[in-house]
Amino acid sequence: MADRPLLGHRPNVANEGLALFADELAQQGVPVQRIDWRPPAPGSEHALARLALATERITEANDRALARLQAARPLVAGIGRAGDLIEDMDGRTLLHAGPPIEWPDMSGPLRGAIIGAALYEELADTPDEAASRAAAGDFNFVPCHERGAVGPMAGVVSHSMPMWIVANEAAGNRALCTLNEGLGKVLRYGAYDGEVLDRLRWMRDVLAHVLGSALEVLGEPIDLRAMLAHALQMGDEGHNRNRAGTSLLLRELHPALLTSEEPTSDKVEAVRFISGNDHFFLNLVMAAGKATADSASGIGGSSVVVAMARNGTEFGIRLSGTGDEWFTGPAGEIDGLYLAGFGPEDANLDIGDSTITETMGIGGMAMAAAPAIVRFVGGSPQDAIDATRSMYEITWGESEHYQVPSLGFRGTPLGIDARAVVHTGVLPVVNTGIAHREPGIGQVGAGLVDPPMEAFVAATRALADAL
Amino acid sequence: MADRPLLGHRPNVANEGLALFADELAQQGVPVQRIDWRPPAPGSEHALARLALATERITEANDRALARLQAARPLVAGIGRAGDLIEDMDGRTLLHAGPPIEWPDMSGPLRGAIIGAALYEELADTPDEAASRAAAGDFNFVPCHERGAVGPMAGVVSHSMPMWIVANEAAGNRALCTLNEGLGKVLRYGAYDGEVLDRLRWMRDVLAHVLGSALEVLGEPIDLRAMLAHALQMGDEGHNRNRAGTSLLLRELHPALLTSEEPTSDKVEAVRFISGNDHFFLNLVMAAGKATADSASGIGGSSVVVAMARNGTEFGIRLSGTGDEWFTGPAGEIDGLYLAGFGPEDANLDIGDSTITETMGIGGMAMAAAPAIVRFVGGSPQDAIDATRSMYEITWGESEHYQVPSLGFRGTPLGIDARAVVHTGVLPVVNTGIAHREPGIGQVGAGLVDPPMEAFVAATRALADAL
Repeated sequence: MADRPLLGHRPNVANEGLALFADELAQQGVPVQRIDWRPPAPGSEHALARLALATERITEANDRALARLQAARPLVAGIGRAGDLIEDMDGRTLLHAGPPIEWPDMSGPLRGAIIGAALYEELADTPDEAASRAAAGDFNFVPCHERGAVGPMAGVVSHSMPMWIVANEAAGNRALCTLNEGLGKVLRYGAYDGEVLDRLRWMRDVLAHVLGSALEVLGEPIDLRAMLAHALQMGDEGHNRNRAGTSLLLRELHPALLTSEEPTSDKVEAVRFISGNDHFFLNLVMAAGKATADSASGIGGSSVVVAMARNGTEFGIRLSGTGDEWFTGPAGEIDGLYLAGFGPEDANLDIGDSTITETMGIGGMAMAAAPAIVRFVGGSPQDAIDATRSMYEITWGESEHYQVPSLGFRGTPLGIDARAVVHTGVLPVVNTGIAHREPGIGQVGAGLVDPPMEAFVAATRALADAL
Repeated sequence: MADRPLLGHRPNVANEGLALFADELAQQGVPVQRIDWRPPAPGSEHALARLALATERITEANDRALARLQAARPLVAGIGRAGDLIEDMDGRTLLHAGPPIEWPDMSGPLRGAIIGAALYEELADTPDEAASRAAAGDFNFVPCHERGAVGPMAGVVSHSMPMWIVANEAAGNRALCTLNEGLGKVLRYGAYDGEVLDRLRWMRDVLAHVLGSALEVLGEPIDLRAMLAHALQMGDEGHNRNRAGTSLLLRELHPALLTSEEPTSDKVEAVRFISGNDHFFLNLVMAAGKATADSASGIGGSSVVVAMARNGTEFGIRLSGTGDEWFTGPAGEIDGLYLAGFGPEDANLDIGDSTITETMGIGGMAMAAAPAIVRFVGGSPQDAIDATRSMYEITWGESEHYQVPSLGFRGTPLGIDARAVVHTGVLPVVNTGIAHREPGIGQVGAGLVDPPMEAFVAATRALADAL
């Protein structure tokens, strides 16, 4: 227990193997939770010791970061085009999920999405030409996260794609995310055939206009924090279960869609498209997460995680106290359920910026709110409850807005503390879709994945260096 | 354990105090549930003994009743007017919730709703005149249940009121229910001022047409069983929490509402009205429940409950095996949460046909699916889980369609066995709204209520007599 104080204030006492001490505390009426003792992650001992000397400063910084996460109030501010909204976004710039990566290191689904975006933007006429141009360095690859955006799975964003604009009223910042394409053969899972490209064009030429007009008619921005809070009382966890969120979004837009001036046939098509895809709300949640997490970044000394993102090859994180630096490790293999005809041998490694949901205290953090998600990602409802419970070990606080009914309305675990991750060996729970490892195919399943511990170790070291 | 076999086949063994026997079973790997032993309800011993002699026949009958409950597939078939849909429904006929009752015995909210309906139908010009005519026997009072209908709270239905038509595809029967008026000052809670009557007229002249047209455009009937099954995965229990159901209904109607030919302003008004009332779905659920329960009625020898309904004075039940006879006891006092400014002294006794939801295996039976309902009816999420668990003691089976994610997707308790109620002393869990005891006021709270045991005792005796 000697180095326990470095974890700062905690809701109750975790006892790692010293049964006698635990019994003593229990006798005194102090709540004691017995967990298996694990040594800190290899390579982190020295950094943890150095950070222990700065506990007070880190505590203060983490409290500030948590306060920003709590205060964030993401609102739907509109829809625009990537090229208009993002700085330095020329026609050859392609954003992608995760930490920085170049063509030679990209996995199949990311390459597939790059090829698809190049065809969609008419940067190439054939998949081969697109791949050749990409390999020749003709495109400029930039992480979404470095342009105020996030993207699910491959997360590829090109110049003419429509994007949700989500404003965080509390901090005055904003974040962007593409519109959700639905499931199956879609760009974000690395598919790029005619059906995929036609859908992207329709989203640009029809869907974005229908939604943009409805938002204008609505007149006031949609409060995503309130909507998400409701969705978490309705069996969503906001990452891989968004049936309630999608329903509530449609419900909110319904009157405006009746009176907006787009052609009725376009509106019907748009509503059918949204209604046919329970994940439609996800991309709004992701933009809300980015707007939330960004507002908590840049606080010197804070060990709170403000980004977790995967490019299909590497999993990277950023801490509030270490600026724009990425700390990476290999992307994980996903343990989950597969669509008929597919299995683990088809699976790509973990990919996508959607881990921004866990960063904002929902998704894997809130699985206890969504017992039915186990039908999608595997496991039992009790596993979902246990997953959320275990996350309180590594988070700095509990959400004031997002609550889990089945845990007595306890706030979701919020603000992952990188120190606590390396100290306890408990990794953030992430649930995610599984892309086929080859370009051009699409989704093959969904499941749970472990982030790489080495990213948290490296981040902890860098924070120690910075202090 | 001597008289245990009279309960027929059961999913596991309930042990009432004989610890030794329980241990023996447990050693043999038989699941054993220890419950407190309670003597059968007073007055039921002889009937239970007689029924024990007919166990085989009752088992067969209950299996048939349960099969009908399972097979029921309620579909939204349209909207019509009470006077057109209901036999012998002349202008002076007023249906009401619960078992039969006449004016002198009616409680405040039922009287208030009768007064309101008389004003709405222009059977009287003032509340006093309406009350005088009611007292003079000018109106014909009939239970909704006796005309293939159900009504929430006071449940008053008059000639020109629009009604949902729900068809049970499996059995070819149908059931009716009014449209939900929203919360607060509404007819069903006994309010009858101008605002209440204006709303009823608007529902008749606008809302019913908007919904009817949308259903026509939709072309195929809405599958309420599937929608309810989804809603139960989204935190609804279908009686007092219907936020998911209402959202899913709007989502289903959305494309049709865009193209139906009613005036846009009417459609906007209708959608705002529905969207502003999370209970809107309840009345469809109730009609689904009636269509489901009716299909299981009239099976000789069956002890399965096919109606539970309260008129604000008495709580009545019907069994499948005892035909149209009502078995009644006094309506209960509700234990719950009150709206600001109201307390138990303002509360009317239990009222309404909405207990048809518990009859079909949802509502109080499914509270474990809706932990957030405790914010409305009181208690803790654990109480909600315990409530559902206890109901398996008194039900003949488990729903194949309605599942509780937090109980590992176990089917909800389905088919209340009146014998099991009197034998175990476990009463069906009912959650409900609370009406003010005076006419003209409205809702004052919501909570949980016990049905009267004597109704189940009387039903059990009548079943024994019939066999």
